[in-house]
Amino acid sequence: MDAKISAQSVMERCDILGRCSEEPGLLVRRFASPAMRQVNETIASWMRAVGMSAHQDQLGNLIGRYEADHAQAKTLLLGSHLDTVRDAGKYDGPLGVMIALSVVERLHQRGEHLSFALDVLGFADEEGLRYHSAYLGSKAVAGTFDPAVLHLLDSDGMRMTEAIRAFGGDPEGIAGAKRSAEDLLGYCEVHIEQGPVLESLNLPVGLVSAIAGQSRVYLSFTGEAGHAGTVPMALRRDALCAAAEFALAVEAYGGSVPALVATIGQFTVQPGASNVIPGLVTLSLDVRHQEDATRVQACYDLEAQATRIAEARGVALNWTLLQESRSVHCAPQLAEHLGQSIASSGFPLHILPSGAGHDAVALADLTNVAMLFVRCRGGVSHNPAEAVTSEDVTVAIEVLERFLYALARVEGGRL
Amino acid sequence: MDAKISAQSVMERCDILGRCSEEPGLLVRRFASPAMRQVNETIASWMRAVGMSAHQDQLGNLIGRYEADHAQAKTLLLGSHLDTVRDAGKYDGPLGVMIALSVVERLHQRGEHLSFALDVLGFADEEGLRYHSAYLGSKAVAGTFDPAVLHLLDSDGMRMTEAIRAFGGDPEGIAGAKRSAEDLLGYCEVHIEQGPVLESLNLPVGLVSAIAGQSRVYLSFTGEAGHAGTVPMALRRDALCAAAEFALAVEAYGGSVPALVATIGQFTVQPGASNVIPGLVTLSLDVRHQEDATRVQACYDLEAQATRIAEARGVALNWTLLQESRSVHCAPQLAEHLGQSIASSGFPLHILPSGAGHDAVALADLTNVAMLFVRCRGGVSHNPAEAVTSEDVTVAIEVLERFLYALARVEGGRL
Repeated sequence: MDAKISAQSVMERCDILGRCSEEPGLLVRRFASPAMRQVNETIASWMRAVGMSAHQDQLGNLIGRYEADHAQAKTLLLGSHLDTVRDAGKYDGPLGVMIALSVVERLHQRGEHLSFALDVLGFADEEGLRYHSAYLGSKAVAGTFDPAVLHLLDSDGMRMTEAIRAFGGDPEGIAGAKRSAEDLLGYCEVHIEQGPVLESLNLPVGLVSAIAGQSRVYLSFTGEAGHAGTVPMALRRDALCAAAEFALAVEAYGGSVPALVATIGQFTVQPGASNVIPGLVTLSLDVRHQEDATRVQACYDLEAQATRIAEARGVALNWTLLQESRSVHCAPQLAEHLGQSIASSGFPLHILPSGAGHDAVALADLTNVAMLFVRCRGGVSHNPAEAVTSEDVTVAIEVLERFLYALARVEGGRL
Repeated sequence: MDAKISAQSVMERCDILGRCSEEPGLLVRRFASPAMRQVNETIASWMRAVGMSAHQDQLGNLIGRYEADHAQAKTLLLGSHLDTVRDAGKYDGPLGVMIALSVVERLHQRGEHLSFALDVLGFADEEGLRYHSAYLGSKAVAGTFDPAVLHLLDSDGMRMTEAIRAFGGDPEGIAGAKRSAEDLLGYCEVHIEQGPVLESLNLPVGLVSAIAGQSRVYLSFTGEAGHAGTVPMALRRDALCAAAEFALAVEAYGGSVPALVATIGQFTVQPGASNVIPGLVTLSLDVRHQEDATRVQACYDLEAQATRIAEARGVALNWTLLQESRSVHCAPQLAEHLGQSIASSGFPLHILPSGAGHDAVALADLTNVAMLFVRCRGGVSHNPAEAVTSEDVTVAIEVLERFLYALARVEGGRL
């Protein structure tokens, strides 16, 4: 089967899944919702049609299995998530599941089985929209699911335990969803880039080096509010000007360190009247890099700059590190094969970090992970305008297929 | 009578007036409110006790008259406003009326009348809290009251005409509140500085050169929102960074032009999430200077800088001039006498512009105006923490008294 035709099928299936929503007129599919049941049942039927078994695990993850060509073989995990944000696009998550399914379909059409089994996973929760807790699905598979979250309530007051039970899962048995590391070859996830890098390079796909670690800082500058007409410039302690100086320092620092991203996204000025000098600015700082030491150094340097700015202006600085997550590096053994598969596609191999989190972060606690990014239009995601082309999906299918064959050639202990 | 004792009386009277409020626990006195009736009646009784006649004009301004030593004499207007902002301090406005009353009281105690009459005015509305229209009181006296505002509604739906009528005024007869310019020597207002300049110079009072003109600009920078993790620094069009660069440009420009004040007070970032690059920042710019040409040039230069910043960053700029008001210069003839009176007080004469508006702005359309500023603690106003010292009030009384005697010496055509 021509990969172009497979890609068209992937596009059509993403369209179909994109219509499975909890709300009319926009796409929203929360964990354990009726819309999630609909996509799980739909995809399970597609899986069974291409020679796979399909079931839901104790949390509600969809698992389709395509057996190996021999017994006691290991398993390679493929997949991504099937839940969405509110007013979502139709590719963030489902595209990876559909491309994995498509590759299995092509094997099945050729009557082929590999020297390892393929499990295509459709994770039940990655976005965390319903319970504000990320990676429920992949954490259950990795064995890092925290039972404490079972008592969280959604916005309608429904406890997670009830939601899982209503969905056909078993909140008491979630530990049983954990996979055994020794049975696995690894996990490979295909996902839209959610950024503009591949588009800017005119490349259909890219190899992910790592998923960046992240530091989230809350900070504030406290100066002195005053009358905009009566306080001379020289007597001001303007909190906005201090924060503005810091914003430019963050921008300059981010631009000076390769692959670092540093963002001030929240910036609230008080009292916020046109005739009052700002007395207080509170802001968020988000710093990400694939090397944790680089990220930690960046936070250290930026705090020093904020301190210097505050001291020079006679304003007070509050700096609070809210949250830190470590980076996750893709496994070199898998990445090398995936990179060669990209290079064989006729397009230059571009290696880039992922600045966004993915199920691969949680799976990395269980097994080796690798990720393939697919170009998305304008770098847009979490938005109905999210778009990929059938041509790029064709390349992704070919790359993933080539990757599986490459692994099959070496599988048997050398990985 | 020792001026210190007069000052103590002024302080006590400000305390009494500060308790006349529409709300318990905080000071708020809107135009034509029961609290305004209470202060007008209280002050009228104090006026009558020191040899003055007292009445309310058609708008509700309180007018106390102390006659000259001869018939057909001209009149010098003194005073300030008696309304307040919400949660106000007790000196912004009433202090000027009480100091004027105190000076009359001292003349009365000595049995003196000057070669001109003194009218002490307590304006009914300067802050504009009730109808969001400033200078209702002084505009009525100046003859520039716009009858169109009579149809405005307050937050309870009461039309201004009704409010004036209920207060004992005559909305149809407001034109009759206008004073005749040829009968007047001028208007002299004592007011708290509402800024930190006198405090920083350790001076009790200062001479106002002019009330600054003002330009109010609304502007926005529109860049492109994006994922804080996935968009590399070099591919960003961050609206916040553009606005921050502009904020520092405004600060630097303001600091480079003597007596110019330029303030960004409102600064709203959208979408305002910690993990999203800002796509839109809307901000206010407030520029004031006593020379209109300097202010207009400043707006022109700052718009050019904003344009340059926007172009260099590939973001869109929207620049809208919302409002402009011209500066009002104090009359040299009056200012010279007032300045000499300050210099004779034993303190250095400091001349400063007023960055805030005052009733003198409206009165300047009718007659020559002059203003004396009194130091206020921390430059704070429009706040219950507003504070002046009895010592500074003593100086202000002595200066105003000296000013009246100086005018009396020259009054008779030489002004």
